[in-house]
Amino acid sequence: MISFNTILFNDFETLDAFGPVEIIGKMPKTYRLGYFSMNGGIILSGQQVCVSTLPLSEIDTTGVLLIPGGIGTRKLVHDTDFICQLERLSKEAAYVLTVCTGSALLAKTGLLKGRNATSNKLAFDWVCGNGNDICWVKKARWVKDDKYYTSSGVSAGMDMTLGFVRDIHGEKRAQDLCRHIEYIWNRDKDDDPFAIT
Amino acid sequence: MISFNTILFNDFETLDAFGPVEIIGKMPKTYRLGYFSMNGGIILSGQQVCVSTLPLSEIDTTGVLLIPGGIGTRKLVHDTDFICQLERLSKEAAYVLTVCTGSALLAKTGLLKGRNATSNKLAFDWVCGNGNDICWVKKARWVKDDKYYTSSGVSAGMDMTLGFVRDIHGEKRAQDLCRHIEYIWNRDKDDDPFAIT
Repeated sequence: MISFNTILFNDFETLDAFGPVEIIGKMPKTYRLGYFSMNGGIILSGQQVCVSTLPLSEIDTTGVLLIPGGIGTRKLVHDTDFICQLERLSKEAAYVLTVCTGSALLAKTGLLKGRNATSNKLAFDWVCGNGNDICWVKKARWVKDDKYYTSSGVSAGMDMTLGFVRDIHGEKRAQDLCRHIEYIWNRDKDDDPFAIT
Repeated sequence: MISFNTILFNDFETLDAFGPVEIIGKMPKTYRLGYFSMNGGIILSGQQVCVSTLPLSEIDTTGVLLIPGGIGTRKLVHDTDFICQLERLSKEAAYVLTVCTGSALLAKTGLLKGRNATSNKLAFDWVCGNGNDICWVKKARWVKDDKYYTSSGVSAGMDMTLGFVRDIHGEKRAQDLCRHIEYIWNRDKDDDPFAIT
């Protein structure tokens, strides 16, 4: 059983977190889902969803980490305690998945240095400003670099998560998930209709 | 300001609710989001998301109603108190949107009688058994009949919600939302790759 740990914070983007969670949640024999925040307790999403969370200290650190984006990241990139914890958790995690501006948080930890990564196209310049020495890919639905998966804005997180499932569990598993949730998968990570050229 | 009221229950399907909510949440000057359940309090989704809700009695009944599906509907179709409340709320609502097996709950109220509707393809027979005299459309991404919108499985709810936005607020608004959340919209309600023929 692999822990799939979603890190939440106030003003996280709802679909950034719950799109990937919907997909991974369809593999209950393989993954155990958990929701965490800095100190635990109730977290309010940017779409006013009140979610109950456990503290970061209770994460099974060997699992997969999901880091959503959202307007809350604008404040959180300056929270050195949070970034420090995120660095530790990301180092220990088997895989780290970021959606949208979640890549700004991961960039702040320094762990993307020298790596390829992407983010939301409408917040791209701001995200890039949070990490030097990173090759920010302007045209990508998602980017994989070693154990780090970073996706473009919001909905791209679902395509990336299916790409992650394909990489780890094979094409058929990803296809089966699509059929179950009737999801029309944009399966090519380099096909990005939202790229700003 | 229009109230967009999402009705939650234990074992609701996470994306059924939070896909549409993500889209509508991008129109904060037009819609006010709220989350409700029979008696209020904490509701646990099928993907172990703990969500805090208000009781149904606090709904602004003139708004839009979103009814997700999920395994929890199997029990809920037999809950006459809930179905009775849902009937009252659906009658009063300006629009009613159901996702996936949420259409089974709406069917149970009797309000879909003589109307066209659809649902998840993998649960289609079960859903049909919850409402006679309904024209269940086997091949549709979503169906609109007067104020009732019903979508196919899980992800189809996002395509339907964008269709709803297009119907009410125009094509450009729907397109703008897609760009913001980098969503590749399957805009044709009759194009259903998951139809079982």
